[in-house]
Amino acid sequence: MRRQRWLQNQREQRLKIAKKELPQSALPEHDGTGRVKLAFRALEKDGAISSERTITVPTGVSAFDAASWNGIAIDSTCGGYGTCKKCKVKITSGDVPISPLDNRAFSATELSQGWRLACLVRTVENISIDVPPLTTRPKAATVGVGRQVILRPAVQKRYVELEEPTLHDQRTDIVRLLDAIDDIEATVSLASIRALPQILRSSYFKVTAVFIDQALIDVEPGDTTSIRYGIAYDLGTTTVVATLLDLNTGTPLAVKSMLNKQQPFGADVISRISATMLDPLALDRLRSLAQATLSELTNEVCEEAGINPLHVYEVALAGNATMTQLVLGIDPEPIGVAPFIMVSADYPDVEASELGISIHPRAKAVILPSLGAYVGGDIVAGALASGMDRDKRLRLFIDVGTNCEIILGNGEKILATAAPAGPAFEAASIRCGVRAASGAIETIKIEDGEFVIGTIEDVPAIGICGSGLVDACACLVQVGLLDHSGRFVSDEIAATVAPKLAARLLQREGERVFVLTWSGKEGDLNDSVYLTQRDVRELQFAKAAIATGWALLLEEFGVEPSEIQQVLLAGSFGSYLSPASAIKIGLVPKLSVLRIVSAGNVAGEGAKMTLLSAQERHGANALLQEIEYVELSDRADFNDKFVERLAFPS
Amino acid sequence: MRRQRWLQNQREQRLKIAKKELPQSALPEHDGTGRVKLAFRALEKDGAISSERTITVPTGVSAFDAASWNGIAIDSTCGGYGTCKKCKVKITSGDVPISPLDNRAFSATELSQGWRLACLVRTVENISIDVPPLTTRPKAATVGVGRQVILRPAVQKRYVELEEPTLHDQRTDIVRLLDAIDDIEATVSLASIRALPQILRSSYFKVTAVFIDQALIDVEPGDTTSIRYGIAYDLGTTTVVATLLDLNTGTPLAVKSMLNKQQPFGADVISRISATMLDPLALDRLRSLAQATLSELTNEVCEEAGINPLHVYEVALAGNATMTQLVLGIDPEPIGVAPFIMVSADYPDVEASELGISIHPRAKAVILPSLGAYVGGDIVAGALASGMDRDKRLRLFIDVGTNCEIILGNGEKILATAAPAGPAFEAASIRCGVRAASGAIETIKIEDGEFVIGTIEDVPAIGICGSGLVDACACLVQVGLLDHSGRFVSDEIAATVAPKLAARLLQREGERVFVLTWSGKEGDLNDSVYLTQRDVRELQFAKAAIATGWALLLEEFGVEPSEIQQVLLAGSFGSYLSPASAIKIGLVPKLSVLRIVSAGNVAGEGAKMTLLSAQERHGANALLQEIEYVELSDRADFNDKFVERLAFPS
Repeated sequence: MRRQRWLQNQREQRLKIAKKELPQSALPEHDGTGRVKLAFRALEKDGAISSERTITVPTGVSAFDAASWNGIAIDSTCGGYGTCKKCKVKITSGDVPISPLDNRAFSATELSQGWRLACLVRTVENISIDVPPLTTRPKAATVGVGRQVILRPAVQKRYVELEEPTLHDQRTDIVRLLDAIDDIEATVSLASIRALPQILRSSYFKVTAVFIDQALIDVEPGDTTSIRYGIAYDLGTTTVVATLLDLNTGTPLAVKSMLNKQQPFGADVISRISATMLDPLALDRLRSLAQATLSELTNEVCEEAGINPLHVYEVALAGNATMTQLVLGIDPEPIGVAPFIMVSADYPDVEASELGISIHPRAKAVILPSLGAYVGGDIVAGALASGMDRDKRLRLFIDVGTNCEIILGNGEKILATAAPAGPAFEAASIRCGVRAASGAIETIKIEDGEFVIGTIEDVPAIGICGSGLVDACACLVQVGLLDHSGRFVSDEIAATVAPKLAARLLQREGERVFVLTWSGKEGDLNDSVYLTQRDVRELQFAKAAIATGWALLLEEFGVEPSEIQQVLLAGSFGSYLSPASAIKIGLVPKLSVLRIVSAGNVAGEGAKMTLLSAQERHGANALLQEIEYVELSDRADFNDKFVERLAFPS
Repeated sequence: MRRQRWLQNQREQRLKIAKKELPQSALPEHDGTGRVKLAFRALEKDGAISSERTITVPTGVSAFDAASWNGIAIDSTCGGYGTCKKCKVKITSGDVPISPLDNRAFSATELSQGWRLACLVRTVENISIDVPPLTTRPKAATVGVGRQVILRPAVQKRYVELEEPTLHDQRTDIVRLLDAIDDIEATVSLASIRALPQILRSSYFKVTAVFIDQALIDVEPGDTTSIRYGIAYDLGTTTVVATLLDLNTGTPLAVKSMLNKQQPFGADVISRISATMLDPLALDRLRSLAQATLSELTNEVCEEAGINPLHVYEVALAGNATMTQLVLGIDPEPIGVAPFIMVSADYPDVEASELGISIHPRAKAVILPSLGAYVGGDIVAGALASGMDRDKRLRLFIDVGTNCEIILGNGEKILATAAPAGPAFEAASIRCGVRAASGAIETIKIEDGEFVIGTIEDVPAIGICGSGLVDACACLVQVGLLDHSGRFVSDEIAATVAPKLAARLLQREGERVFVLTWSGKEGDLNDSVYLTQRDVRELQFAKAAIATGWALLLEEFGVEPSEIQQVLLAGSFGSYLSPASAIKIGLVPKLSVLRIVSAGNVAGEGAKMTLLSAQERHGANALLQEIEYVELSDRADFNDKFVERLAFPS
């Protein structure tokens, strides 16, 4: 009962925060396809360049978000709505239209020099951007999808100058310290005060106390209040991302990612769970591999930002339920077999050392809670980062992956489900499929009846990744080489509907294939990248599972697809999908491409939020109660709907 | 403010407990000197002997206390007042008078067979005692000095048989477990639930949850509710004692003691603190030596009782402030130098692993709080065990040692002070002084004008320990060989007052000495045990410091020595002092010997109480507020009083 009341209170408080909507006029028109390159230069106060970095993002992503997701610090406190006017950057090459809000933020001279608000910079072409140094100590930060987070990290520091003890003032060291700090009702552990006598005396009783919430975790000599870091981890089954945050400013200082070192145990969670069932040593091995991944990333982000890992006092981890249990060394078998049971939805008090990372020895770890065995902490983080619990628009959130999680909500009512999409999007079951790395085909457009192929890092194609697969199918349907049932058309029809492409449609080992890039001479399939009829079917199954998921959620909610005001494509794959192609293959409802938004690594963004705001951390827990899980697998109409959704929309 | 109210509430609750006083008729007359041997045989249900042990205690100690202090389990729930009638034992040799309460507890036949209540058995002769097996699950236990402790250990177990999960009941493992336990609002740590999935499934969802207060620390397969142990440590500067307790019955199962392995760093706390100031590695060495001592004792008590150390879930440690900081690895230097500052008076949440002992990996340690740098956790434990905060009689508590702590109170007002007695009682500065071990002279009586010497283990004397020194001086004053100023009398006077002893008074290296035992032929001092004039002076300084302490406390309290209803002699030395001798040398006020009571190892008893009762644990913390510390060293009249007290009373 007490918990119920607390939740209601939390909810009311959070709904009080006025909902702002980005003015449509600020959104530049784009066709929802392709990528743009943003070349950032971070400047120091004297104008010297402190770092340079070029980032490729889907068209339509704001310069602020692109920077934030990649560890480039730009001030912002309003949630990316152009109102705080802190995210000033200077466009040094490329054309960026002036928004009405830019007119209020800058003088005519500044505008002509290229000054713009980074949160409103969305382009359809490559641009170069200079980022001025941060202003000090903002009260809020912009994170996730338009989320303004008031900076109240659980990690707090207090600098005090104490009276030295005398025979008439024999207060113990700890009482002397805590008497001087009147705004925190401290709790003390042995480890946190073990060195107190030496530290107090060697620093002449001038020290900084470090707290996490009420818990005193350390006392440091002198004034260290400006030094306060945290790391947010997105522990994916495939990819793991670490973001180092300056907790004083809320800005990211470094982002690093790498493959989860558990890969040798299989590509998906089920393979990894199976491994633990077959080999009693596998659980410990999987735990240490996940921890080694986090540890290596931790060292990398600290090194890149040039900070001492001992100054990282708190970390947050978002992962699916299986990854979370594995990294904590908890047997995942009951998650993998019916009736699919987690050991716990949440983990209230975890030492960061339990994650095998070398940071402050008494640092804490926030583990994002899981809604269920297949709607994990990554999705709860994503829902938090995209404001599913407070945005009053009807929004559809889709985290695309092997297991696809879908949330539909309007801030009052939130439904969630999981759809088993299979490995097509990870390109694992695709004939020429590769992971999204250098040389993977990631975008395809049609220009003058020809395919224009884009690869990662613009090198010759070595295969096709998930977003390329979606683009390929969308383009093939568009030109008429795939019919709506998903079959390649006959050579006769091909020659009619797409004369320039017909020669690429071949027969290979009794199967129709479409060649995307020739490796050597035309007609030689060796090392060429092509799409088979079976590949198309794989994608159809995957997208049908997802489409059935959101269609049933819409039905459950009692709304029509056209009422959806925003579709968020999330996850390391979903964020890089072309909205136009997602619509064309029916993966998302048929809406204006401007309503289909790349949400970025929302799991990581949610983890960041919990570090920046103790309030948001409670929000993550509250989501467990607020989101209603809808089980699809036991619905009688699931198979009918699924078959209906296999076809490509006309 | 909240703390104040809480304390008041605690106090009121505890004062409500009616104060019972042991009927004087039950106390056999004794002269307050010497020792008795109690030969215990513990019997099983079928009458077989499970263990045998002979214990030497000062005359006047009850058989129940003697057993309890030495790890021999006898039922008792009333506090040793003869009212619960559970502590039935059978005297098999030696004469034990029948008390009025024995008449109510036993039939005439039983009495004639030797049945008595152990708490009322106090003899002036050696006896043999058969102890029947324990009855099951008492609600209270008798501990310390007449303390009835209601058994409510912080360690709690709950056996549950859970419904297995289904697709319609997908509660997480931890929720399933805690839903079944409705009387504990559990808090959960990662470590405590890591193995939960395996344990639940391998034991078919029939498990025992282990809690310390609200904290779930483990889940064990099957029903283990009958298995629940704790260990109480008295971490002395010289001697360390460990008592293994059955938390289900409140009875001791094994007691072991050994020298503190820190001995090589010096005999007293000041030498050990000095070591840390001279050598930066000494602190870590002292910590690990103290921990090694605890660890060895832990293994010994578990082995003796035949229990698995993993079933020890909680320990309690009572030590002086320096020992406490050293064993926890905290620099004690500020305790050793003015203004004498502890890092903290209390340590609320300590893992037992911090003490370097191998028991349950998530066991907790209760660290008895210290009142000040020189009135440590051992004294707070002693005050708790002897009921200084609730007994309404005016009582004087003296823990005799190098640093002597004195408490005077009547349950309403409690004063405490520390008196630096120096090393005389530890026999360190005494010419023929030895520790209280085999061959040490521990008792001296006068019979027919001769000294009757008692040694530990009745072997030839190798030296004299503290209690022997006190007896020796008392006897020498009594026979007139020492005058009241503490000077040995002239040979002429000696021949007159003590003709049989005069030949033992010799001159050696310009100093008068009195020979207690000859090693070889009379007159040869080599290897003989003797007392020098300087030894007598050492004792005078020590006892004067103590007597000044209690005299000033009495003055502060506004009472006369004759109003004291009970003097408790505590500590490993004080408990073995002959009350009669203590009176004769003026170490305690001049009262009936029956009012001078050996309190035993009250530090250890206090530690035991905190394990048996979470309520008593709060009592220990409340004592910090209830006891008023009186600083003697800055009193103008201290030196005058001290000089007055140097003489032996006439």
